[in-house]
Amino acid sequence: MEIEVDSSKLTKALNVVSRTAVGGKATLPILSNVLVRVDDGKVSLTTTNLDMAVVDYLPVSASKNGVITVPAKLLAEFVANLPKGVPVKMTVEGMKVLTVAGKYNSVLNGTAADDFPELPEIDEVKMVKFKMGVAEFKAGVTQVMVASSNDMTRPALTGVYFNTDGGALYIAATDGYRLAEKQFIEKVESEVKAIVPASSLSEVMRSLSDEEDEIEILFDETQVRFRFGEIEITSKLIDGSFPDYRQLIPKAAEAEVTLEKAELVRVTKLAALFAREAGGSIVLEAKTATGTFSVASVANEFGENTSEIETEVEKDERVTLNSRFLIDALNAVDEDKVMLGFSGKLSPIIVRNEKSKKYTHIIMPLKS
Amino acid sequence: MEIEVDSSKLTKALNVVSRTAVGGKATLPILSNVLVRVDDGKVSLTTTNLDMAVVDYLPVSASKNGVITVPAKLLAEFVANLPKGVPVKMTVEGMKVLTVAGKYNSVLNGTAADDFPELPEIDEVKMVKFKMGVAEFKAGVTQVMVASSNDMTRPALTGVYFNTDGGALYIAATDGYRLAEKQFIEKVESEVKAIVPASSLSEVMRSLSDEEDEIEILFDETQVRFRFGEIEITSKLIDGSFPDYRQLIPKAAEAEVTLEKAELVRVTKLAALFAREAGGSIVLEAKTATGTFSVASVANEFGENTSEIETEVEKDERVTLNSRFLIDALNAVDEDKVMLGFSGKLSPIIVRNEKSKKYTHIIMPLKS
Repeated sequence: MEIEVDSSKLTKALNVVSRTAVGGKATLPILSNVLVRVDDGKVSLTTTNLDMAVVDYLPVSASKNGVITVPAKLLAEFVANLPKGVPVKMTVEGMKVLTVAGKYNSVLNGTAADDFPELPEIDEVKMVKFKMGVAEFKAGVTQVMVASSNDMTRPALTGVYFNTDGGALYIAATDGYRLAEKQFIEKVESEVKAIVPASSLSEVMRSLSDEEDEIEILFDETQVRFRFGEIEITSKLIDGSFPDYRQLIPKAAEAEVTLEKAELVRVTKLAALFAREAGGSIVLEAKTATGTFSVASVANEFGENTSEIETEVEKDERVTLNSRFLIDALNAVDEDKVMLGFSGKLSPIIVRNEKSKKYTHIIMPLKS
Repeated sequence: MEIEVDSSKLTKALNVVSRTAVGGKATLPILSNVLVRVDDGKVSLTTTNLDMAVVDYLPVSASKNGVITVPAKLLAEFVANLPKGVPVKMTVEGMKVLTVAGKYNSVLNGTAADDFPELPEIDEVKMVKFKMGVAEFKAGVTQVMVASSNDMTRPALTGVYFNTDGGALYIAATDGYRLAEKQFIEKVESEVKAIVPASSLSEVMRSLSDEEDEIEILFDETQVRFRFGEIEITSKLIDGSFPDYRQLIPKAAEAEVTLEKAELVRVTKLAALFAREAGGSIVLEAKTATGTFSVASVANEFGENTSEIETEVEKDERVTLNSRFLIDALNAVDEDKVMLGFSGKLSPIIVRNEKSKKYTHIIMPLKS
């Protein structure tokens, strides 16, 4: 096996795949390796952590078939430190991989590919397929993923729920305290209900370069595959049922307040500083009498804080919520003006763009 | 006490002083506070961690004398989150400090200044004074401080040694494995021998903005004071004796090799990747037969690596050293070409600029 490829292109591909290789002392040491394969002239690099596999095809061809695994991070770092844009030749001799670029030489000890675990083969013909622009994909995933949970005892909540409803594809996530939903593709032909691990989606997000325009998303019963450019990321789905979240989104709020997002972010951050002692608890208050919306917090030991924004207020409202959740929600909406919807101090607060209704974020209030 | 100051200027001053305030649960809680003082119209902010004190004078005047302490980081963060360039009014009412900027309000619980520990008064008239350009100060400190130690069991090595010799001021640092020395000011009138804590110097470096041109350095027997712009940083000196380091610097090397710094950094980084298993140990070799300088390393488990640079070689040399120390030294020299001086495999390696001799870095070899 002999591969010749430009150092910059090899660096890019190795950066993508080496992140998924398991670092440190893995229980299965071969998981820290990258599988280098030449098959029918096509050269691919593959890594897996058993839950997810990443394949990146190199934009070169090689004549002789072969396959070997070598330490992924060491190879990636070696190539990354070579001069940019020079030819790199990788040659396999027995169980050693010689990597040579001009006067820079390395010999890596390889391991036979036999023990390298690959994800189950999947039949793409039978899969449900979606295709969308990379820009919308990135925006939507970022907006929704923020509400997913890290709590591994409730696995379904650590994922993003891809689901079709009324001919549209939605994605949603919730950690039980807040929920985010985005209409992802307006019109789709197929149906799907699948929970994709947030960790796998993060890896897809990191691997998407600015050069890609389009991403394909393919589902079968147990796996999802994301394909873009020369990269294919395949992940197991989370086995579990996602909460019936639509019933949690209030149909309409009792009172709506529209605010400049930047200003609301500022006053929430100010209040968050004083809310640390109280677990992030801040008080939002809309007052018809003064036509003001205020954000306040109290730190028993250190002091307290209030900020006011003038705005149209249709009904007095007062809710207590976690400042971090509000900041996350405000960072997720994408227009300059944000609409907050209130329905009394025990009902979820709705955070939406002033105009577009494609994205909905709701936050459960705290008891006050 | 009432102070009115522009939010951007207050933010800048609070950022500088709040770093020195002790965070978290300090044994002496008042150390996490900033002392706000109005004295003869001058407004100052002071923090201390007992080893070091930072004073920043605000560019405003206030009429009524007064002094109070308030939580430093909370005040700094509150002001940093206000809009830029708006007037901020701080008013003391009893033990509370009201900070108001338009519709943004906070009340901070203050503590009486009586318990605030200040460093011993020093008589500047009796101090030894030096004055220099900020650019040279920063460059020199960066070049030397890298060789200082973190090992608190040998306090003298955790500092930078300011010392005069032959009418010039030098700074030097060593951790026992490497040593860096810089001629700091070519001609000085006074004499000094003082070890300044590297931590205090780091704080001076962080506080120096690009607006400052000149820095004053004042020593007495036990303290050093750095003064620049509106800021004064006073630190205790380290009580101990610094090694007689000049005898450690070889007068001349047996063989010198001159190399492109960027290229040597590259090959050292490549070798460092494979040297991790061996504690960073890499082998430098100059060969007259081939006219090459090579850098190599071996990772028993993963593989090995060699890179070669063509250069003039006057004598065969072979030394083993720690790759991290060589990278640190190469980052410290400031010309494009670097001179390495060898005197056999047991003698210190000299790293110098090709031309300027004002900076010297030496590295002890490893046994091989």
